[in-house]
Amino acid sequence: MKMTQAELTAFLDSEFPQMRPLKFRIEHWDGTMLRLAMPIAEQNLRPGGTVSGPAMMTLADCAAYMLLLGLIGPVALAVTTNLNINFLRKPEPEPLECTCRILKLGKRLAVLDASIVKVGDDDLVAHATATYSIPPR
Amino acid sequence: MKMTQAELTAFLDSEFPQMRPLKFRIEHWDGTMLRLAMPIAEQNLRPGGTVSGPAMMTLADCAAYMLLLGLIGPVALAVTTNLNINFLRKPEPEPLECTCRILKLGKRLAVLDASIVKVGDDDLVAHATATYSIPPR
Amino acid sequence: MKMTQAELTAFLDSEFPQMRPLKFRIEHWDGTMLRLAMPIAEQNLRPGGTVSGPAMMTLADCAAYMLLLGLIGPVALAVTTNLNINFLRKPEPEPLECTCRILKLGKRLAVLDASIVKVGDDDLVAHATATYSIPPR
Amino acid sequence: MKMTQAELTAFLDSEFPQMRPLKFRIEHWDGTMLRLAMPIAEQNLRPGGTVSGPAMMTLADCAAYMLLLGLIGPVALAVTTNLNINFLRKPEPEPLECTCRILKLGKRLAVLDASIVKVGDDDLVAHATATYSIPPR
Repeated sequence: MKMTQAELTAFLDSEFPQMRPLKFRIEHWDGTMLRLAMPIAEQNLRPGGTVSGPAMMTLADCAAYMLLLGLIGPVALAVTTNLNINFLRKPEPEPLECTCRILKLGKRLAVLDASIVKVGDDDLVAHATATYSIPPR
Repeated sequence: MKMTQAELTAFLDSEFPQMRPLKFRIEHWDGTMLRLAMPIAEQNLRPGGTVSGPAMMTLADCAAYMLLLGLIGPVALAVTTNLNINFLRKPEPEPLECTCRILKLGKRLAVLDASIVKVGDDDLVAHATATYSIPPR
Repeated sequence: MKMTQAELTAFLDSEFPQMRPLKFRIEHWDGTMLRLAMPIAEQNLRPGGTVSGPAMMTLADCAAYMLLLGLIGPVALAVTTNLNINFLRKPEPEPLECTCRILKLGKRLAVLDASIVKVGDDDLVAHATATYSIPPR
Repeated sequence: MKMTQAELTAFLDSEFPQMRPLKFRIEHWDGTMLRLAMPIAEQNLRPGGTVSGPAMMTLADCAAYMLLLGLIGPVALAVTTNLNINFLRKPEPEPLECTCRILKLGKRLAVLDASIVKVGDDDLVAHATATYSIPPR
């Protein structure tokens, strides 16, 4: 682990100010699993009261990116190269959380897996895999 | 074609108010190809001045969804079931546009292809395919 | 559970004769998790002695399909609509196994998750998600 | 262009002997677009007489790989890192062809797009995007 939960939280706040309206909050990070919570914010909803697809894509990408930085540290300018997401159930307008783990941490590529559920439920709302390119160190 | 460019523009504005800060603008729709423009907005940028991945995912999903509604009309509650995106080049903080076409329009599923370039350039910044589930009519 | 491990094994053998050279073998099926083993067969290898990507795609698709039929029964003509696979580590020419679980079983779509490892190892060789369209019953 | 159509054909035959039963044939390669044909072979079919999903995945991966080697030459040990495929229409047991183009050729990653149709038809049977990791030279 190269960054603690507190360091990741500070990094997210300072480096991604445009994400502040989404109110993402790192709830857990133990060096293996990271959980990112998304409360209900006006910006995340669609008419009819469901959480928007782009809000969930943003949640999955952000969770995976935070986990990766937790492992390799903040200096690396990792960039997303691929994200594949399946939307599985229509969420009510309710808080969601994204649980993330690493599938592979290579020298050049990292692949992560992200599962989104509503808080207190086991049924998946969405599931994503994301790949990041890690620059030469 | 079930909806014109003007009808899609009005629909986007009225039904997706939370997207207004992104300032997406439908620039072309001829019943086959739809082009959606994303100007530079504060919200789309990341520190260092590149366009954020989630902003591009949102652009691709929105363009594909608009095209699909253009073909099947506004009554259908189509939902995204899968989105796969490859980020190909790091964009400068500059206006992007997304060109979309349909790969398959079935009774239950539609699959679309979205290409993102910077305005006036041919090199792809990102490429996505998206699948939508179409409810029984 | 609509089909037992023995029934799935018989179905795979009788309905997919063109897969026999791959020698896939269902090793576990408990109604929740299915594991499909791929021994080393000439046809699965690439020069240099690594397992070919298409062989692993076939393994993941077959495992997911068997699990789905285990849940919904053999009458349904389910078809793969999407498969996304990440190749994570280059496998030696050695037996692999694919562990599969369901992410969503809907009326019209099922989404499954497949993890490929070499036998006796925990490191992922490949990871796939696959979507199947289920015909109206 | 680093390899001609004749060189690619010879390479495919000598380096991928396990693919010979599939009888893939490079029909066109002009430095930008490559087309790979798949005749009907026993091994490609499923009961009921449709072309199997894994056969189409193999076709798409092989076409993209040939195109990439055509651009960078045979020395590079490029490996597939991601393949995403959408199956769009159920093909009859009839010859298919896969048309491939490059979306990005970077130093470390290449991304390609593959469209599968039946010979003489414009409707897509399947569409894939594939990513290859290119080793340092």
